[in-house]
Amino acid sequence: MKRTTPRQENAQRERLLRLLQDGPRNRAELGDLVRLSRSALAGELARLSELALIEEVELATSRKGRRSRMVRLSPSLRFAAVVIGAASVNVAITTGDLEILAQASESCDARQGPDAALSVALDLLGELRSQGLAPRLHGVGMGVPGPVSFRDDFAVVPPVMPGWDRYPVRDALTRRLGCPALIDNDANLMALGEMHAGVARTAGDFLLVKLGTGIGCGIVIDGGIHRGASGSAGDIGHVQLDDHGPACLCGNTGCLEAYIGGTAIARQAEEAARSGTSAGLAERLARAGRLTAQDAGAAAAAGDATAIAMIRDGGRRLGQVLADLVSFFNPGLIVIAGGLADLTGLGHVVLTEVRSVVHRRSPPLATRELPIMLSELGDTSGVVGAAKLISTHVLSHRPADL
Amino acid sequence: MKRTTPRQENAQRERLLRLLQDGPRNRAELGDLVRLSRSALAGELARLSELALIEEVELATSRKGRRSRMVRLSPSLRFAAVVIGAASVNVAITTGDLEILAQASESCDARQGPDAALSVALDLLGELRSQGLAPRLHGVGMGVPGPVSFRDDFAVVPPVMPGWDRYPVRDALTRRLGCPALIDNDANLMALGEMHAGVARTAGDFLLVKLGTGIGCGIVIDGGIHRGASGSAGDIGHVQLDDHGPACLCGNTGCLEAYIGGTAIARQAEEAARSGTSAGLAERLARAGRLTAQDAGAAAAAGDATAIAMIRDGGRRLGQVLADLVSFFNPGLIVIAGGLADLTGLGHVVLTEVRSVVHRRSPPLATRELPIMLSELGDTSGVVGAAKLISTHVLSHRPADL
Repeated sequence: MKRTTPRQENAQRERLLRLLQDGPRNRAELGDLVRLSRSALAGELARLSELALIEEVELATSRKGRRSRMVRLSPSLRFAAVVIGAASVNVAITTGDLEILAQASESCDARQGPDAALSVALDLLGELRSQGLAPRLHGVGMGVPGPVSFRDDFAVVPPVMPGWDRYPVRDALTRRLGCPALIDNDANLMALGEMHAGVARTAGDFLLVKLGTGIGCGIVIDGGIHRGASGSAGDIGHVQLDDHGPACLCGNTGCLEAYIGGTAIARQAEEAARSGTSAGLAERLARAGRLTAQDAGAAAAAGDATAIAMIRDGGRRLGQVLADLVSFFNPGLIVIAGGLADLTGLGHVVLTEVRSVVHRRSPPLATRELPIMLSELGDTSGVVGAAKLISTHVLSHRPADL
Repeated sequence: MKRTTPRQENAQRERLLRLLQDGPRNRAELGDLVRLSRSALAGELARLSELALIEEVELATSRKGRRSRMVRLSPSLRFAAVVIGAASVNVAITTGDLEILAQASESCDARQGPDAALSVALDLLGELRSQGLAPRLHGVGMGVPGPVSFRDDFAVVPPVMPGWDRYPVRDALTRRLGCPALIDNDANLMALGEMHAGVARTAGDFLLVKLGTGIGCGIVIDGGIHRGASGSAGDIGHVQLDDHGPACLCGNTGCLEAYIGGTAIARQAEEAARSGTSAGLAERLARAGRLTAQDAGAAAAAGDATAIAMIRDGGRRLGQVLADLVSFFNPGLIVIAGGLADLTGLGHVVLTEVRSVVHRRSPPLATRELPIMLSELGDTSGVVGAAKLISTHVLSHRPADL
C-alpha cells in the first residue's frame, strides 16, 4: 500500500483550503480538484470540521434557487492583519476567505520602536474587535518595512527601524492576541495580496515593487514568495545608482531610496521650495511648514514643472534598477504598489518612466510580453497579504501545530 | 483507491533515476528514498528494465567483497554534450551517470552561424564515436552563449550570434544524431554541471556567473534552473553600469560586457599595449599580432601593473552588478566559472574584487553566510550540465515521449 507522508497530507489540505478561500464548493468538485478519492476526501473534511475550520451547508447554487450541499470555510473564522509602515500602522480584520470586515489606521513613527508600534496596532485591533466582529482571532499576520529573518520570525537590521532588530514580534503578538502569528516583509505581503485579490491573480512569476516611504520588492516564483537564503531577498532600496549621488539615510550615497520614495521626494520638494525653483512648492511649504510626497504629487498634477521633473527623474532611476532586474530575472509581470503609487500626479508619472526605461534597456525577449502596471488595491494589498500569510499557515498546518 | 497521475509517475521516475545517476543502489534503499512500496517499485523497475535504461546486477558492496543485488543505470547508456562558445565548440560523450568518456574541442567563430558550428560539433562527435565509445546515443544536450526560448527550443537574438535567431537547432541535432535533443543557455548548463559534480553539489539556491568571451548567469532556485517568463533570465551581460562608459558590441554603452569578459579584456589589453602604458603587453602584441584575455592574465601574473589594474577594474564592475543581485535575490552561494575564471592571473583577482564589493555593498543579512567561489570543474561544467539536461529529460519521460 502506498503511504501518505505528513508533508503530502499538508499539501493536500493546503490545496483544499486554498480552493475554499475562493468560495464554497461541492464535494465532487473538491475531490476532482485535489485528486482525492471520495473516502479520502470525506476523512479530510471530517477532520477539518472537527477543528471548526469548515462546515457543510445547503446553499442555492443556481439562479432558479436549486440548492446543493456545499463545503465552505467556517463563517466564524477571523484573521487579523497588521502592517507597520515607516509613518503609520494599518490593521484589518478579515473572514476566512479574506474579505475585509473592518480596517483602521493611525500615524505612528516606526523609529519610536516596536513597543510603540505594537501598542498602536493592538489598540486599533481592540477597537475593531469591540464592535463584536471577531470574538475569537484564529491568527494574525504582520508586515514590517524591512528584511525579516523568516525562519526566526523577527525583523533584522531594518535601516529605518532602529530598535526592531531581533525584537521577538511574533511572540509578542501571540501572547497579546492568543493566536498564531507570522511576520514578513511588507513588500512580500503586498505581493501575496495582489495574488489573492489584485492585478496578479493569474500571475505565477512577478515582481511587486513597493513605493512607500522607502522602496522594497516582493519576488514571486511559481506562486510562492522567494525569500532568499536568509530572508532578505527583494531589498532593492539601497542598490547604488551613483557613487557621487545624494546621501541616503543608510549612510551610503546614491542609493535608489535617495532618489525616489516618500523620504526622497519630500526632501527634494523642500529643496526646490527653498531654492526658489518652484513657486508652487514654496507656497505649500509656507502654508504647511513641511512638504510630503503628496505635496510634490499635487504640485505635479497642477503642472509644476520642477515637481514633474523631480518625479520623472525618480521614475527613471527606479526604471534603471528594474531594467537590470528584468534582464536578470525575466518576470512575467511587474506591479507597482504602495502609498506613492496611489498619489495623484505621482503613480502614473513614475509608471510611464519605468515602462520607457525598461523597454529601452532590457533585452527584447524579456520585455516583449511584460506588463508593467499600477496596483488597483490601494492600501489594502498589505493587509490582505498579511491575512493570506497567516490564514494559509493556520489552515494548512496539522491540528497539533495550531 | 488513490489514483497516481502521469505527472506523479514522472516525478517518481525522475527521482529514481536521479538517485541512480549518483551510483548503484539496492532495492530497499531505493524504495525508502523515493517512498514507494515494494510492489510499486518492482513495477517501476520492470518498466525501466524493459526500456534498457537500468539493469540489476550482483555487485561487491563491502570491502570484504560481500556481494549484493544492486540496481544501476544501464552501462550502455550514452549521452552527447555540445557547448557552443563564442570562439570554440566543445563536445563530450558521457555514460548514463554522466562520467565523461571522451571530450574534444575546436576553434570556431559562432558568428559564422549555426551551420558552421553544428558541422564542427558533429564532426568532433563523429570522431569520438568512431572510437567505438557510443554506438548508440540516447540523447544530446547543447548549450549556446545567449538566451534560449526553452519552450520553443531555439536560441533567440543572441547578440554575439547573428544567424542563430530562431534557427531550429533541436530539430537539426535530432535529425543528424537520431536521438532526443535539448538546447539551453550555456550559463544554465554550467549551473547544472556544478550541481551535479562541482562546488554547488549541496546548494539549492545559487548563482553561476559565466565569465567567458561574454558574461552570463545561471539562476538556481530549489535545485532547478529559473529560466524566467520567456527564457531569458540571467542575461546580465548588458546591464548598464555607466551611460558614458565604453561602447559595447550590442550597440549600447557602458554594459558589463564592455568592462569584463574575453572581448573587453582583450580590447583593453591591446589599447594598453598601443598607448604605451604597458611594455609587457606591447611586447606580447608585437610577438603575436593580437592579444587575448589569456595574455592579459599572464601579464598580470607576471606583475604588470596595467594588466592588474585592468582586471581589478573589471572585477569591481562585476562585483557592482553582483552586489545588486545579492540585495535582490539573496542567493546561498555564488560560483564564478567559465574560460576566464580558469586563467592564471585573472580568476583569483576577479574573485577577490567581487568578494570585496559584494561584502561592502550588499545588506549584511544577505552576505553574512554567502560563499563566493571559483568553479573547480574547468571546462567540463558546461558539457556535464548539457549531459545532465538531456539525461534528466530522457530518463524521466514516459516511453511514448522517448
